[in-house]
Amino acid sequence: MTYEPDETHDPKRQSWVGTANGHASFPIQNLPFGVFSPPNEDARGGVAIGEEIFDLKRLLEAGLLKGEAAEAARAASGATLNAFMALGRDARIELRRRLSDLLTAETDEGRRAGGQALRLLHKAAACTLHLPAKVGSYTDFFAGIHHATNAGTRMKREPPLLPNYKYVPVAYHGRASSVVVSGTALRRPNGQSKLSENEDPIFGPSRKLDIELELGVWIGPGNRLGEPIPIARAGEHVVGLCMLNDWSARDIQSWEFVPLGPFLAKNFGTTVSPWIVTMEALAPFRQPQPARPASDPKPLPYLWDDADQANGAFDIDIEVLIRSESMRARSLPPHRIVASNVKHLYWTLAQLVAHHTSGGCNLQPGDLFGSGTLSAPERSGWGSLWELTDDGAISIQLPTGETRTFTQDGDEVILRAHASRDGYVSIGFGDCAGTILSAMPS
Amino acid sequence: MTYEPDETHDPKRQSWVGTANGHASFPIQNLPFGVFSPPNEDARGGVAIGEEIFDLKRLLEAGLLKGEAAEAARAASGATLNAFMALGRDARIELRRRLSDLLTAETDEGRRAGGQALRLLHKAAACTLHLPAKVGSYTDFFAGIHHATNAGTRMKREPPLLPNYKYVPVAYHGRASSVVVSGTALRRPNGQSKLSENEDPIFGPSRKLDIELELGVWIGPGNRLGEPIPIARAGEHVVGLCMLNDWSARDIQSWEFVPLGPFLAKNFGTTVSPWIVTMEALAPFRQPQPARPASDPKPLPYLWDDADQANGAFDIDIEVLIRSESMRARSLPPHRIVASNVKHLYWTLAQLVAHHTSGGCNLQPGDLFGSGTLSAPERSGWGSLWELTDDGAISIQLPTGETRTFTQDGDEVILRAHASRDGYVSIGFGDCAGTILSAMPS
Repeated sequence: MTYEPDETHDPKRQSWVGTANGHASFPIQNLPFGVFSPPNEDARGGVAIGEEIFDLKRLLEAGLLKGEAAEAARAASGATLNAFMALGRDARIELRRRLSDLLTAETDEGRRAGGQALRLLHKAAACTLHLPAKVGSYTDFFAGIHHATNAGTRMKREPPLLPNYKYVPVAYHGRASSVVVSGTALRRPNGQSKLSENEDPIFGPSRKLDIELELGVWIGPGNRLGEPIPIARAGEHVVGLCMLNDWSARDIQSWEFVPLGPFLAKNFGTTVSPWIVTMEALAPFRQPQPARPASDPKPLPYLWDDADQANGAFDIDIEVLIRSESMRARSLPPHRIVASNVKHLYWTLAQLVAHHTSGGCNLQPGDLFGSGTLSAPERSGWGSLWELTDDGAISIQLPTGETRTFTQDGDEVILRAHASRDGYVSIGFGDCAGTILSAMPS
Repeated sequence: MTYEPDETHDPKRQSWVGTANGHASFPIQNLPFGVFSPPNEDARGGVAIGEEIFDLKRLLEAGLLKGEAAEAARAASGATLNAFMALGRDARIELRRRLSDLLTAETDEGRRAGGQALRLLHKAAACTLHLPAKVGSYTDFFAGIHHATNAGTRMKREPPLLPNYKYVPVAYHGRASSVVVSGTALRRPNGQSKLSENEDPIFGPSRKLDIELELGVWIGPGNRLGEPIPIARAGEHVVGLCMLNDWSARDIQSWEFVPLGPFLAKNFGTTVSPWIVTMEALAPFRQPQPARPASDPKPLPYLWDDADQANGAFDIDIEVLIRSESMRARSLPPHRIVASNVKHLYWTLAQLVAHHTSGGCNLQPGDLFGSGTLSAPERSGWGSLWELTDDGAISIQLPTGETRTFTQDGDEVILRAHASRDGYVSIGFGDCAGTILSAMPS
C-alpha cells in the first residue's frame, strides 16, 4: 500500500479562502473532516479550511460534487461521519481531491465554489464542533515505549519493560460512551483510593488527576467478526488521526487496577480533538519506523510487512499545554509543559489494526484507538504528569508562580500536534482541550 | 425501592397460549423481551410465551394497547430495544402488566387478544432471534467471589483474594462489537501464546479456549456524564438479565494480560441469551445478599443501601452444558458439566451500577454488564474449564467416552438458568449457546 504525496500536497496550491494560506493548522494541504453545527442549524460534516469550515451538506446541495465524491460527501453530511468512514479509502481520496480543487484559488472549479463562499463557508468560531463520529468501541493501546519504560521504572521493575512488550501490541478496551470532544469540561472524578497500606480505602475526589498525551486513531471500514485484517491491508482501515487526552486518576487506578486493568480511573472522560486529519493529508510526514531498534526481536509474521515498516511511522510534533484559572484571569497564554513526537510509537498503526483483529475481533466504522502515552526519551517529553513529576514528588512551575504536581480544578489542559517537512506545507490537528470542574459532592 | 411480586406472578394465572402453561422457561409469569424476525419480515420486539413469540409491533397495529403501555410497545417494536430501555422502569412495568392481562386466558382482554392469535403469535422455532439491543458499551465485572478465589489460588496468591476485592467491584471494559446472540457460531481465535518461559511466543489457534458462566445485565436508562447514580436509585437502571458466556482464550490471556488486563483473549466473541428476563419477572426470586459474610468489611457508603442488601441477591440456578460433534451425531442431549447459582455474586446489581457511575462514567440504554464467572464454592459448580480442569490437568468425561480439558472445535456450549421458589411458578432464561468453528488459517 502506498501513501505518496500528490497534487493535493503541492505547496504552491493556495486557497481562495484567505485565512487558509499560511494557516498553522488548516491550509488547503490539510482538509481534515469533522462534524459541526452552524448557529441554529443541524449538525453536519465539514472540512476545516483556515479559520472557516467548508460545509459538505451545502456543497452537495449546490451541485458542486458528482459521482464518488458526491456519494462520499453525502455520507459525510449527517450528524456523524460513521457512514463516511464505512465507505473506505478510495471514496475519501476522491472527495479530498475534489475538495482541494474546489478550494483552490486558480481553477475553474475554485472560482465557481468561491463565488458561493457566503453559502458554503462558516466562520469556525461561530460554529459548535461535535465528536466526528459515534464512537462504537474505544481501544487504548500502550504503544509509547518510553512511557511503558517509565511506568516499569516507577514500579521498580528490572528490566522496566514487561516480557511481552516487544511482541504484543498491548492494549485494553476503554469506555466509548465517555469520549468527548475538545472543549467539553470534565468533572474531577470521585473514587476509591488507599492512602497507605494500613489504612482502609476512602471515597472522595481524586487527588492525582493526570493527563496522557496520546494520538487518536479513527477506524473504518473495519472487518466482520471472525475475519482478521491482514497486515498488508490494515492501513486501509485507518481513516485518520486526532489528538487524545486519556485523563487518568492515578490514585483510583493504583487501588482498583489489579488484576483486570484500569476501569473507573479512566472512564470518566477521554477528550479528542474534533478534526480527523486523514491518512492522505499525512502522506508527506510518513517515515520508516524508528522506535524499534534493529536489535529488538522481529515481530511475528502477522505483524510484519516490509512496506509498512518502510513508511509506517509519522514525524508529528505533539505537545501538552496547561492554563490555570489564574493564568486565564491574567490573560496569559497556555504554558507548554511537554514536547514529544508521534515517532515514539513502538508499533505502526497497521500493526495495531492487524493485532486487534488477529483473533477475529471486528472493528467498525467510528471505532477509536488511543495510541498510549507518547513520551519522548527525555523528561521534557514525558507525556503524563505522573512521569513528569515522579508521581507528585517534583513540581512543575507555571508562569504565574503557581506550581503543579497533578491537575487542579479550573486547569485547562490542551494537546496540540503539528507535522512539518522540508518542501511541504505544515499542517496541524487543532486543539484537544478540556477544563477540569470540581468534583460532585461525595 | 421495592420489588414486590404482584398479580403478574399469580401462580393461578394461565395463558390462552397453550404451550405457555407449565413451560419450563416462558410461562405467563415470565414475559421476557427480545428482538426477532418472523420468516421474511423485519426484526421487531416481542415477548416469549411458551413456544411462541407475542409480536409487539402487530399488537400495536391491532390497537390492543393504549397510553403508557402503547408508548412502551412502540419503543419496543423496532429492530433494537434501546429506545424501550431508555423509557425506564414505570413504562416497562405498565407494558408488562398489560401483556400479562392480554395473554391471560380468563379476562376480556385475553379473549380479545386470543381471538387474533394467528396474527399476534409466531412459532418461536420459525423465527430468527437477534441481539435484544445494540450494545453501546460492555463491561465485565469480577463479582463471582469463588471464581476470584480460585483464580488467586491457581496463581499461588496467599491469601487468594487481592486486597481490593472486598472493597472495589473490580471490572474491566469488554468489547461491545463482538457480543453475539445465542446460536451464533464462533471461530476459535488465533493469537500469540508462549508455551514455556524460554521459548519465543508463537501465533496460532488457541489451545485453551475456555468458557465463563456469567450473568448478563441489561442497562437502561442510565445517566449523564459526570452525574453518578446513587445506590438507592441504582436498581432502577437495570432492565433485566440474560445469560452470558465470556469465551476466554487462556493461553492468549496469560501472555498478553500484563499490565492492562484481558484484550484479545476475550474480544473475539461474547455470547448472550436472546431474552431479557425483566427485574419485574424476577421479583419473587430476590433474597438477602448471602455471598458477603458478616465478618467482611462493610462497603463504603456509596455502595451501601440497607434496602438493597435486604433483597439484592437472586436465587437463580445456572448451569453449563456441552455437546460435542460426536454427541450431536449420536443424537445425545447436551451434558451438564457445571451447576451453580447467581447467589454467589459478591456484589448486588445496584452496587455494580453505583460503582460504575461513581466517578461520573455515563451508562446508556443498551449497555451490558457481565457479572464475572459465577462459580459455586464446590468444584461441581466452578464456572470455567480453567477452574474445573485445573488448567488442563484434569479431564472431564463426556457420555461418548470423549474427554475434555478445554473446548474442541465443533463443541457446542450451552448456558441455562432457571429460578424457582415455593408458591411461585418457575421461570427460565432460554439457552445461551454457541458452537466453536475451527480457527482461520494463520
